Amino acid sequence: MNYFAHDSAVIEAHCQIGIGTKIWHICHIREGAKIGRNCVLGRNVYVEAGAVIGDAVHIQNNVSIYNGVILRNRVFVGPSVVFTNDRYPRAGNKDWKLVETIVEEGASIGAGAVVLCGIRIGKGAMIGAGARVIRDVEPGETYVECGRQIPEGL
Amino acid sequence: MNYFAHDSAVIEAHCQIGIGTKIWHICHIREGAKIGRNCVLGRNVYVEAGAVIGDAVHIQNNVSIYNGVILRNRVFVGPSVVFTNDRYPRAGNKDWKLVETIVEEGASIGAGAVVLCGIRIGKGAMIGAGARVIRDVEPGETYVECGRQIPEGL
Amino acid sequence: MNYFAHDSAVIEAHCQIGIGTKIWHICHIREGAKIGRNCVLGRNVYVEAGAVIGDAVHIQNNVSIYNGVILRNRVFVGPSVVFTNDRYPRAGNKDWKLVETIVEEGASIGAGAVVLCGIRIGKGAMIGAGARVIRDVEPGETYVECGRQIPEGL
Repeated sequence: MNYFAHDSAVIEAHCQIGIGTKIWHICHIREGAKIGRNCVLGRNVYVEAGAVIGDAVHIQNNVSIYNGVILRNRVFVGPSVVFTNDRYPRAGNKDWKLVETIVEEGASIGAGAVVLCGIRIGKGAMIGAGARVIRDVEPGETYVECGRQIPEGL
Repeated sequence: MNYFAHDSAVIEAHCQIGIGTKIWHICHIREGAKIGRNCVLGRNVYVEAGAVIGDAVHIQNNVSIYNGVILRNRVFVGPSVVFTNDRYPRAGNKDWKLVETIVEEGASIGAGAVVLCGIRIGKGAMIGAGARVIRDVEPGETYVECGRQIPEGL
Repeated sequence: MNYFAHDSAVIEAHCQIGIGTKIWHICHIREGAKIGRNCVLGRNVYVEAGAVIGDAVHIQNNVSIYNGVILRNRVFVGPSVVFTNDRYPRAGNKDWKLVETIVEEGASIGAGAVVLCGIRIGKGAMIGAGARVIRDVEPGETYVECGRQIPEGL
């Protein structure tokens, strides 16, 4: 084991965690999750199996990385950023369809942003704090919108 | 006791928690709180006395259910959804007035949405991720707004 | 020691915490942080060294107070409010520039609001729940916007 995890963190079985990664207080890494090298996970970060986290990714406090969320190398995820993996969530729905989110290399997601699933955030893009990301973001783009979501089909 | 609570969860005295309910890591259920049957509470969910949680409600990570928040059966609450119970919060105000929020049966609240108090979200409604809910939502309505709040009286 | 901290809270060395302050479950106060008298910190509040917290400040659940965030006396911070201290965050950037945020006496920040750094929220101002604070707020002003951020230079 060549990574660091604080005593208060829960690391389930069969996780792959790279050398040099630091996992801080009250994090929870679910069984079979994969995290790259030299990452930093702040307080209360939750990572599910099926999430993909590259190398040198920085995730700030209070972020949940669900199954289907893919963070490439050197991505920055600000505090309290919110990801999703289900477009039409309903309690008790067993037929829900997993929808992926991809955040390309070196992109940054500002604090408190909400990222809908099915979206690709391009290489090096910058998502403003508090933005609601409702469409793909181009490589290098600065995205600061907090607009309406357009329901599918409209 | 016919519900499950993870060892790291705090369940205070005199709570009523229904059969089949699962309460996950670092949750905190305050004294006298009432939670129905077959619910799932994700990580770091906080429930106050005076909150009402029906049956088969699913609450994702990092949600606080305050006194005055009423979730009917089969409601879905996404991760990091924010509820409130005071329209004009001020530090140290002992005369604050509790304002209720009602979420009707089968409604879903998308991830990261902020729900103002004094609002009713109708049966089966769907609140988009990151929405700011500033008015009542009709039964079955899809609400995706992130608009200005209209201060009372304007 | 004349303040209260729950057993599950982490209080690092050399903190200054005033008489009568209450620090609740799973909070984390970093080394050297300064917190005034008669404050209340809810669950999962994180305070860094370099943050300044005055007297009688109330901070609700799931809030992180970073280095550079200054909260004057009697400020109210709602649940899941998000602060920042870096305008252009990038993973692994060692040359980032700390930008301060100042919240003046008696101001309230509604639940789930996102406060960009470099901003001053005036005395007694009221920030609506879910607002994105992208400009200075006048003393006594009610700010409810959830608009676009204007990138610098435009």
